[in-house]
Amino acid sequence: MSRTLYDLSAADGRRFSPYCWRAKLALAHKGLDAATVPVAFTEIPAILGGGQTTVPVLDDGGRIVRDSFAIAEYLEDACPDGPSLFGGEGGRGKARLIEGWSMYALHPQISGLVLRDIWASLAPKDQDYFRTSREQRFGRTLEDIQAGREERLEAFRKSLQPIRHALTHAPYIGGKTPLFADYILFGTLQWARVASDFQLLAERDPVAVWFAGIADLYGGRGKRVME
Amino acid sequence: MSRTLYDLSAADGRRFSPYCWRAKLALAHKGLDAATVPVAFTEIPAILGGGQTTVPVLDDGGRIVRDSFAIAEYLEDACPDGPSLFGGEGGRGKARLIEGWSMYALHPQISGLVLRDIWASLAPKDQDYFRTSREQRFGRTLEDIQAGREERLEAFRKSLQPIRHALTHAPYIGGKTPLFADYILFGTLQWARVASDFQLLAERDPVAVWFAGIADLYGGRGKRVME
Repeated sequence: MSRTLYDLSAADGRRFSPYCWRAKLALAHKGLDAATVPVAFTEIPAILGGGQTTVPVLDDGGRIVRDSFAIAEYLEDACPDGPSLFGGEGGRGKARLIEGWSMYALHPQISGLVLRDIWASLAPKDQDYFRTSREQRFGRTLEDIQAGREERLEAFRKSLQPIRHALTHAPYIGGKTPLFADYILFGTLQWARVASDFQLLAERDPVAVWFAGIADLYGGRGKRVME
Repeated sequence: MSRTLYDLSAADGRRFSPYCWRAKLALAHKGLDAATVPVAFTEIPAILGGGQTTVPVLDDGGRIVRDSFAIAEYLEDACPDGPSLFGGEGGRGKARLIEGWSMYALHPQISGLVLRDIWASLAPKDQDYFRTSREQRFGRTLEDIQAGREERLEAFRKSLQPIRHALTHAPYIGGKTPLFADYILFGTLQWARVASDFQLLAERDPVAVWFAGIADLYGGRGKRVME
């Protein structure tokens, strides 16, 4: 049975989508292979004959699942014998809160640090779409959004304190072993790391150590930013 | 076997400590009764003959456990047959991240909204200690810390968006049933609700609906603010 993941790609093939990284690590966590198909932002509407608006999209032998959290839940239910992605039913709700924290507290800050760099990494056919949609969302130019980022870096690093707090008690957000919550936050940080040279994390930050550990999992899956 | 929880108390007996609320709901979750002993801030060093610096402190028939998260973990291990507080091993790490989010993102904001009100609720013997320690920590007077709070209320409410996000997917942070993560965040909000008349949550906010539901659990345990 073939398994395909449609994965957002920059002009040079780098895979930078935070949500696609969550899905790719969820697949690896369950020990599942999946071919990835690189897509540009403007190619998303044509995936699988149309009707898609975001990636990742998983085609699992004809079963189509969209949205990274939905993919994790699908894999959890479809592969109950593999290692759990949530560590029990109660873990899904908490993972949702962590997803929300990433979405509402971290993503806006990261946008302010690297959004213009992401634009620069895109294929020309994507750049117009990206600039227009993001400038409309933020009400400013990409250049204005990213300007003065050095002054906002310390506040961003400070806002990761909840991750450091968790890591003082266990090696992973999931506890003794990584769970989907780890991949949620890995994806968030991987987004900037792949798309930009701007260094978000100080080298000795425990978050950076944990991040490197997640990238090393499953044969270094998180390091394969080109495919 | 007697079970006693040392519980921070205001001058009139109101119990307002976020950490003590977490411990009280963890006990109720496990179906355990515990007598609570009201203590003032300045009485903490004398609890159980000395050596304590914070509350809650649980005396479970001679076994002494301090710190709300440690109490939850103690109860989880001591009462494995009762309903789980973490929903599996993986849930502890995620609960730690949520504890950290509350500590580093929510508590500082709530301090800016109600810290002077908390001072006003304390017994006279506690007020000097509280004013001195908090003004040293924040570098400002209690009055300055709380001044202009109306202008910060919307930002605080907006920062609760991760909770709303989780609640769009399940009735509790823990999913279908409440877990310790729910009590962590309930305690955080209960702190302000008990100690201050300043209304943190808009009435129709899904967070307010969830909060009221947690307060109603276990015979309305969260409503017994005086004992």
